[in-house]
Amino acid sequence: MPSAAHFPIGVFDSGVGGLTVVRALMQRLPQEHILYFGDTARVPYGVKSVETIEQFALQITDFLLEKQVKMLIIACNTMAAVAADAIRRRSPVPVLDVIEAGAQVAAASTRKRQVGVIGTLATISSGAYDQAIRSHDPSLHIHSRACPLLVPLVEEGWLDHPVTRLTVQEYLTPLLANEIDTLVLGCTHYPLLRPLLQDVAGEEIRLVDSAETTAERAATLLAQLGLLSRGGAASRHFYVTDVPQRFRTVGERFLGHPLTNVEIVKW
Amino acid sequence: MPSAAHFPIGVFDSGVGGLTVVRALMQRLPQEHILYFGDTARVPYGVKSVETIEQFALQITDFLLEKQVKMLIIACNTMAAVAADAIRRRSPVPVLDVIEAGAQVAAASTRKRQVGVIGTLATISSGAYDQAIRSHDPSLHIHSRACPLLVPLVEEGWLDHPVTRLTVQEYLTPLLANEIDTLVLGCTHYPLLRPLLQDVAGEEIRLVDSAETTAERAATLLAQLGLLSRGGAASRHFYVTDVPQRFRTVGERFLGHPLTNVEIVKW
Repeated sequence: MPSAAHFPIGVFDSGVGGLTVVRALMQRLPQEHILYFGDTARVPYGVKSVETIEQFALQITDFLLEKQVKMLIIACNTMAAVAADAIRRRSPVPVLDVIEAGAQVAAASTRKRQVGVIGTLATISSGAYDQAIRSHDPSLHIHSRACPLLVPLVEEGWLDHPVTRLTVQEYLTPLLANEIDTLVLGCTHYPLLRPLLQDVAGEEIRLVDSAETTAERAATLLAQLGLLSRGGAASRHFYVTDVPQRFRTVGERFLGHPLTNVEIVKW
Repeated sequence: MPSAAHFPIGVFDSGVGGLTVVRALMQRLPQEHILYFGDTARVPYGVKSVETIEQFALQITDFLLEKQVKMLIIACNTMAAVAADAIRRRSPVPVLDVIEAGAQVAAASTRKRQVGVIGTLATISSGAYDQAIRSHDPSLHIHSRACPLLVPLVEEGWLDHPVTRLTVQEYLTPLLANEIDTLVLGCTHYPLLRPLLQDVAGEEIRLVDSAETTAERAATLLAQLGLLSRGGAASRHFYVTDVPQRFRTVGERFLGHPLTNVEIVKW
């Protein structure tokens, strides 16, 4: 019987955004096998009801569990916000999520006790980051802002465009006025805007990239459980429910690598 | 048996954008009953595959046909681009669509024989406007450009914002360089940007608003068929598959009227 250390990590998202988490995992844990599931036929989840999101999330959970993964990573802020409990109840393997990972680092990093959070409309209005950050320190002040234009700007590839700069300035102004010293990038698309966000926010503000923090937590937890993969060539396999327009271009921009081993799952 | 003239017009869209068509219909045909269907749980269609879009479009077609409509209007450019034929094959009542309506007016209006078309990625890459405009006059030159940021900008409500102006300038520059004299607004969200678009394009360019042209064609066709409603208070009923964030705010901005009689359909 093979040791579970050789089993893959299952990463899932409502679309392609979670590929930034895969990218961070490939950097931090290059020897790990990864199965990615992107529900591209039903993206975006952010505008759907809690009931629907839970149902979709559990369907993906079952799919990945059947493939015998050793850990699940919820790389979608919306699913993490509304379905993480349901997924944890269903899963016999450890479940990490981007919100928990980002919140922990943000709480530990702020000195002025003022934390900014940016994300999609659904993530921000769920209050999930506020709750997760305050669970580490209830006295912290959280200033959050929904930034619905940043996802389409990233998908358009305008990563360093005057339009994007102006948009980011508009969104960050009220947060900066509250003297935040830490800014959580609460959406898997935002790591691609990191240089611009850092430039607009100023060098003194720490950006918490939840893709990176999630990869770091995965590394720690796998080590603790004795489940780190010990070598051999790592494989990555990508399941999607639809191949949308510009899937490869956008996906490769997110992943930072050529996108191979893509398989369509029809539900 | 009631005359079909009293039956409602069925208007459908992937989300709220088609409410600009309802608004134009309410102005042009105030006595008509309207059933609107917005597939807000599965929006946006623009990034999905042709197969998936057809399947969703036929599901909505069946729903409206069961409600006994006298005419169907496809108020979604993406569905019109990829699923209009399938819908026409399914429907026993006349089917109008926003692309056909806009193309006809554009072909009749250009003097320089240079027509610009802007729309979503899916609409533009389908080539549906090119084909529809050239079916009226194959010698016309069509210059089209996908403008994926305009929908989120409209939904954010930045209708006259420096970010939107800069984005529109970037998108229109290559079209204006081709000396177009007619610009088709090939997306139901764009009528809300009409003042800004006219300003950037210049007063000498004719903007073809497909919501208006569709309402005009509906009026002509209903008159020809003897199906114009002859008075009584007109009702409007709105079916949606989910009530997303900011639905009412955004919907009323599109409709230009208070949004009442909203019913959720769970699929």
